Amino acid sequence: MSNPPVAFRERIGSPLVGTAPRLLLLGSGELGREIAIEAMRLGAEVIAVDRYPHAPAMQVAHRHRVLPMTDPAELRAVVEQERPDLIVPEIEQVATDELVRLESEGWTVIPNAEATRITMDRERLRRRAVDLARVPTSRFAVVRSRTEAHAAAREIGFPCLFKSMMSSSGHGMTRVDAPTQVDAAYAEASEHGRVPDPRVMVEEFLRFDREVTMLTLRHYGPDARPATTVLDPIAHVRPGTLYHESWQPERLPPEVEAELDRVARRVTDSLGGFGIFGVECFVAGRRVYFSEVSPRPHDTGLVTLGSQWNSEFALHARAILGLPYLGPEPTTPAAAHVILATGSGPAPELGGLGDALAEPGVRLYLFGKPEAYPDRRLGVAVARGATVDEARRRAAEAAHAVEAKITYPSEPPRTG
Amino acid sequence: MSNPPVAFRERIGSPLVGTAPRLLLLGSGELGREIAIEAMRLGAEVIAVDRYPHAPAMQVAHRHRVLPMTDPAELRAVVEQERPDLIVPEIEQVATDELVRLESEGWTVIPNAEATRITMDRERLRRRAVDLARVPTSRFAVVRSRTEAHAAAREIGFPCLFKSMMSSSGHGMTRVDAPTQVDAAYAEASEHGRVPDPRVMVEEFLRFDREVTMLTLRHYGPDARPATTVLDPIAHVRPGTLYHESWQPERLPPEVEAELDRVARRVTDSLGGFGIFGVECFVAGRRVYFSEVSPRPHDTGLVTLGSQWNSEFALHARAILGLPYLGPEPTTPAAAHVILATGSGPAPELGGLGDALAEPGVRLYLFGKPEAYPDRRLGVAVARGATVDEARRRAAEAAHAVEAKITYPSEPPRTG
Repeated sequence: MSNPPVAFRERIGSPLVGTAPRLLLLGSGELGREIAIEAMRLGAEVIAVDRYPHAPAMQVAHRHRVLPMTDPAELRAVVEQERPDLIVPEIEQVATDELVRLESEGWTVIPNAEATRITMDRERLRRRAVDLARVPTSRFAVVRSRTEAHAAAREIGFPCLFKSMMSSSGHGMTRVDAPTQVDAAYAEASEHGRVPDPRVMVEEFLRFDREVTMLTLRHYGPDARPATTVLDPIAHVRPGTLYHESWQPERLPPEVEAELDRVARRVTDSLGGFGIFGVECFVAGRRVYFSEVSPRPHDTGLVTLGSQWNSEFALHARAILGLPYLGPEPTTPAAAHVILATGSGPAPELGGLGDALAEPGVRLYLFGKPEAYPDRRLGVAVARGATVDEARRRAAEAAHAVEAKITYPSEPPRTG
Repeated sequence: MSNPPVAFRERIGSPLVGTAPRLLLLGSGELGREIAIEAMRLGAEVIAVDRYPHAPAMQVAHRHRVLPMTDPAELRAVVEQERPDLIVPEIEQVATDELVRLESEGWTVIPNAEATRITMDRERLRRRAVDLARVPTSRFAVVRSRTEAHAAAREIGFPCLFKSMMSSSGHGMTRVDAPTQVDAAYAEASEHGRVPDPRVMVEEFLRFDREVTMLTLRHYGPDARPATTVLDPIAHVRPGTLYHESWQPERLPPEVEAELDRVARRVTDSLGGFGIFGVECFVAGRRVYFSEVSPRPHDTGLVTLGSQWNSEFALHARAILGLPYLGPEPTTPAAAHVILATGSGPAPELGGLGDALAEPGVRLYLFGKPEAYPDRRLGVAVARGATVDEARRRAAEAAHAVEAKITYPSEPPRTG
């Protein structure tokens, strides 16, 4: 991390003939789709990878590959075949140890292989935050058995949170209110994910006022010197554990904003590399607690499709391509609200669009996913307003107006 | 045109399995690329067509077809094979008579086949404007020989403009200052285009103060009733005849803005159909003259990538998909400035990007075109500013900092 692995870029050639920078996008969901769009707008060539065909980013990329990205051999094979200038993880579920090896052989991983490895593991990340970045966090313990779990929960107190070691947008998290719930919560957290992990994080249940994401860009400034730009706080609320609704800006007392800025810079400095990071924090009164960080665009940052001229995806593409940026830019009050599937099946159809778009300042982003399952995100409503409250209301009403219906395709699947 | 051919849309299915609306994009340049992006963000399936491979919109579309779109048989074949819900011309050079036939057989053409036929022919368009829309235009004559050309030029006076019959963004236009220049100007205008046309328009050379584009959207309102939304005036200047620089908003006296609004509505009402139109007008003192109209996104509207949350491309996609819209929305002062090739050759490389992006509020859109020739548009710099003057300066400096270099590809062309 002493030398930035992304070089300052003066020239961009042509895609599809071998002279444009080539991005290998590991994960091709809706966040990846926007990264692909913004990278292509800057003249890059994009190869989208995911474990299933017709993923959102595959539909816009120059070409795509379907493979299990958690398989080190398959991951290595696609890198050696495509020879990307940049390996750009979009999700956590990637063979990160293989990324470390690939980086050591000279391939460029965004933001860097170690950051992708640390941030997908709650224990490594928390130790990094506490020991190296020295930012405040909630009290926590890492336990390796039910016995340890009981001891830790008693020590930390009830309610507390049990979290699986692989951090992934709130998946694998349980609130534990009493000792009788410990066994089940430990079992669920340790069995979550493709590879069971006996390590489980037991964490203090913070009584926070706000959950915020600090989008933080590590990039080149115009003088070709590395710089860090922190955007206005994004606040979010979730009825369950998954991302549901976010807005920007969230106005907080100046000293709280200053502390959030400090935490965002310290955490991202300790991870290094180029691109956008979503630094998640809790605000309780005047106190700020670091929670976790995505070394890539963050779900809650979907709001920047409305609140920023350069969305988090545009910023990420620009920074990882080594192009300079001078920010931050003004924030427009905006909100984003997810559109979720209820049923399961192929070829979901989204209805109620007339009502969803019946108010001013609303846009829909529909992801074109080939299959639905309960709570799968099929789209997002993004709204602007004179205030964030107006934007939140508009986005919520639009998202709630959309109904996902599962039908079977009226024609046999076609290749595209 | 009594019944809008685009139906109000309540539901959108899944792309690539036959349940999403399918767009056949005729023309796959940089405007088409943005249309494709916005249509795909709304869940549509996009097939990009152009006469050469690796065109910008082909790189983001679900799939693409390479064919001469001026060939009626080839155009019909691709329509019958792809069975699009919407045929969306992006350029004028399409077999418009065949579009008329296809529409009569039930295919939907955007905005409608007759509008695409009228607007590509200066004579038909001018007669429509004068006779049906009854909007003011410059004095003009349509001539069919050199003899008629001399007579018309004498009658209209020098200087005057000679324009080829196919209207296409300033191509095939000559300023004539004296009788000695008439023969050459007539020859050039009549031989311009793929099919020579003896008809040439001889037009009064207006001493105008401003050339403006009124982006006008014909769309559904939230009550499923057709509506028209006119955006703030876009002004542009061009050193030659081609699009070079534009900005939005251009503030004009209220009565001029009202007249521009009236002209934009009358012209687009007389053409009918759904989607965005670029209504070009001259402003001379307090007078407004209609010049021409694109029944699709307009070059000068590239500025809306910075000045509007819903760019002209987003508005076009939304309107032609039959989704409601409530506008207009606030305009942010912005400017766009083209990045042109100087030399010829494959795989152009764009340099100077570090300097181009050294100011705040600047974005580059690079088109990834596989080949350069002099004055071919390879990108556009879009800038925001506190004022349009600041935005214009930023965009101009950014565009001028970019240098196009022609190199041969370092690897053999690859398919994508």
